Amino acid sequence: MSAYFDHNATTPLDEKVFEAMLPYFKQHFGNASSRHEYGRIARKAVEEAREQVADAVGAHPSQVVFVSGGTEANNFMLKGASAYLKPSRVVVGSVEHPSVMKPAQELAQMGWSLRKIATDGQGLLDLSDAEFALQEPTGLVSTMLVNNETGVVQNVAVIAEMARKRGAWMHTDAVQALGKIEIDFASLNVHAMTLSAHKVYGPKGIAALVVDKRLELKPLISGGGHEKGLRAGTENVPAIVGFGVACELAQKRLAESSGYLQPLRAKLEIGLAEMGAVIFGQAADRVANTSYFSFPGVDGETLVMELDRAGYAVASGSACSSGSSEPSPVLMAMQVERDIARGAIRVSLGKDNIDAQIDGFVVALQTVLARLRKLSAIAV
Amino acid sequence: MSAYFDHNATTPLDEKVFEAMLPYFKQHFGNASSRHEYGRIARKAVEEAREQVADAVGAHPSQVVFVSGGTEANNFMLKGASAYLKPSRVVVGSVEHPSVMKPAQELAQMGWSLRKIATDGQGLLDLSDAEFALQEPTGLVSTMLVNNETGVVQNVAVIAEMARKRGAWMHTDAVQALGKIEIDFASLNVHAMTLSAHKVYGPKGIAALVVDKRLELKPLISGGGHEKGLRAGTENVPAIVGFGVACELAQKRLAESSGYLQPLRAKLEIGLAEMGAVIFGQAADRVANTSYFSFPGVDGETLVMELDRAGYAVASGSACSSGSSEPSPVLMAMQVERDIARGAIRVSLGKDNIDAQIDGFVVALQTVLARLRKLSAIAV
Repeated sequence: MSAYFDHNATTPLDEKVFEAMLPYFKQHFGNASSRHEYGRIARKAVEEAREQVADAVGAHPSQVVFVSGGTEANNFMLKGASAYLKPSRVVVGSVEHPSVMKPAQELAQMGWSLRKIATDGQGLLDLSDAEFALQEPTGLVSTMLVNNETGVVQNVAVIAEMARKRGAWMHTDAVQALGKIEIDFASLNVHAMTLSAHKVYGPKGIAALVVDKRLELKPLISGGGHEKGLRAGTENVPAIVGFGVACELAQKRLAESSGYLQPLRAKLEIGLAEMGAVIFGQAADRVANTSYFSFPGVDGETLVMELDRAGYAVASGSACSSGSSEPSPVLMAMQVERDIARGAIRVSLGKDNIDAQIDGFVVALQTVLARLRKLSAIAV
Repeated sequence: MSAYFDHNATTPLDEKVFEAMLPYFKQHFGNASSRHEYGRIARKAVEEAREQVADAVGAHPSQVVFVSGGTEANNFMLKGASAYLKPSRVVVGSVEHPSVMKPAQELAQMGWSLRKIATDGQGLLDLSDAEFALQEPTGLVSTMLVNNETGVVQNVAVIAEMARKRGAWMHTDAVQALGKIEIDFASLNVHAMTLSAHKVYGPKGIAALVVDKRLELKPLISGGGHEKGLRAGTENVPAIVGFGVACELAQKRLAESSGYLQPLRAKLEIGLAEMGAVIFGQAADRVANTSYFSFPGVDGETLVMELDRAGYAVASGSACSSGSSEPSPVLMAMQVERDIARGAIRVSLGKDNIDAQIDGFVVALQTVLARLRKLSAIAV
C-alpha cells in the first residue's frame, strides 16, 4: 500500500482502540438499553467512554451526546438550535466544512439570514468582520476550531466572547482540532462543540456533540429516549468504547505528536518551496500535521492521481468535496486565484509517518511535476 | 454469561461478519470519498455491500441509502418526505416502534393530522380501519412489517395497495422482519423500507433506507454529497461491509433459521401455558423467534431481574422503552388490561439458542414464579 498522507480525511484505527472495542463486538454485544446482564455491561462501557470523551476536552460527561458522526453533530446543533430560536441571523465562518455550511444554508431557506465571516489571505477568520457580522441580532454562531484543508487554528474563544455578548448560541466544529491542539470546552467559552472519533485513530460512525445543558436542542433523530432524549437509536457500543479510548490516547499523545510532526512538515515544506509551491496558510497558526499547497499551472486532481501511482496517498481539497471539480470553497474564501486553487493538494501527516516517507515524497513529487510540465509544454 | 433470549433488542455479531469487517478496520481504513488507493478500496467495498443489502430484499443497489441505524432511517423517511409534501394526514400503525411514532407525532405538531390504525386483540393491524383511515387525503403511510414486541407479521402489501390508490407514500419498517421472513421490496409494493444490521448478527451503527428513486426526500443530515446527496457524512466502511455480509447470511439461513426456531418456541410456549401465561399475538401469524407473554399478577420488570439472576436474559416490553415503567404502548393498543400488560416479558430466540436452554428456562421460570407468588402472598 501507498504511504498514507491523508489523515485529515480519516485515520487508521489504533491497535489499542481496536483491542478495547473487541469484547463489545464479541461476548459483550448487548443493547445498552436492556436491563439484563448483557445490557448492563454495555451501559457501563458507554458511560465510561462518555467520561473519557469529556475528559479529553475538559467537559462534564453529562455534556456529551453520542451521535453517528461529525456531520450529524453539526446538523444536530444547527437544526436543533434553530427549532427553538426565533429566526434571526446565523453567522458562520466562510471556510466552514460543508456539514456546517449546508445546514446553515437550509436555515437561510427557512427565514434565517446567513452571514459568513470573511477570512484573510491565510484563511484566518477576520475578527473585525466577525464583530461587524454580529451587529445584527444573531441567534446562532458556528466557527470551526481548525480548518480541515489548511490546518489553520481559528480564534474561536474570541468569537465566542462576541457571540455571548450578543446573546447568540456559539458552536465550534472541533473535529480537526482533537488530538492536534489542546482543547478546553470551558475556556473556548462555546455552548457546543463537535468531536469525531475517526480523525483521531478511532472508529468511523461515532462522534459527539458536547453541549452546555442550558441549551435547548430539538433532536434530529427521535424515537426511544436514548442519550437523555437528545438522540434516539440503539447505542453503537463498540464504536463508543473505541471513541473513548481514542480520546484518551489523543490527549496523552498530544504534545509528543505535535513535536514529532512539526519537523516532518517543515522538511516537506522546504522541499515544496524549492519546487515553487504556493503554501496556503503558512503564515498563520496551523496544526502541525497539515500542509496545503499548489503548483501554479498543475491540476490538483491530476497530481493526486499521479502521486497515488507513485505510492503516496494525498488529497486534493477535502475528501468530502471529491466528485466536484470546482476549486475548494475554502480557497475561494481566501481569495486565492482560481487557477492556483485548482492545483490544491493537501498532505496531512499522522503518527505512523516517518522521515524517509517525506524524502521519498519530495523526490516523487519532483519526478511527477517534471513529467506533467513536460507533457503540458508539449500540449502547448 | 446468561443464556441470551433478547435477539429482538440486538444480536451477537456473526463471526463471518466480523471477519469480513476486519480488513476495513485495519489495512483498508481509507475514506470512501478519497480518490487514492485507500479511498478506492473502501469505495469498492461499500458498493459491494450495497449490492448484498439490495439482493437480500430484491431491490436495486441504487435504491439503498446507508444511514446510522433503523431509527435514523425511520426519521429520514418521515421527516424527509414531509418536507416535500403538503401537510395532510399521516397514517401509522398503532403498534409502531417509537422511531416511527415520535417523528409522526412531530409531523402532527407541524400541521399534519396523525391517524393510527387500530389493531385487533392479536396485535394485527385492522385492514378495515386502515381503509377507513385512508378515506381522508393522506400523504404518508408507515406500518411495520413485523412487530418488535409481539413478532406479529403485518399485511403491509395490502395496506401499501390502499395507500398507493390514494396517492400516499408508503413506508415500512422491516427491521424486525429481516432474516426472519422472506422480504421482497417489489411485491410489498412500498415506496421505502427500513433495514438494520444489528438485528441480523451484523454490527450496530449501520442501517439502510431502501427507497424508490421517484420519491423526493429531504436529507436529514446534510453536508458533503455522500449517498447521492441523501445522507452526508464519512461512510462507516467496516460497518457497511458487515451489514452486507449479514444480509447475505440472513438470506441464506432464512428457511433453516425459521425451521430451527419454531419447535424451540413451541416447546417454550407449552411450558408457559402450563404455568398460566397469557401469550400475546399467539393466534396471529408471527415470526418464529418471538414469544411475548405475561403472568397475571406478576410484575414484568421484577421477573426480568429475577430471570437475569437465574441466568436468562429476556426483555420486558422493548429495550427502547426501558427506563419507563409505563406498560407497553403496543399492548395498550391491543387493548390488553393494564395489569396484564405490566407483566409483559419478551423472549426472542436466535440461531445460537439450543433446546436445553428452553428446558432450563422453563424450570427457572417455575422457580422464580413460585418464589414471587409466595412473597406476594406474604405481602398480602
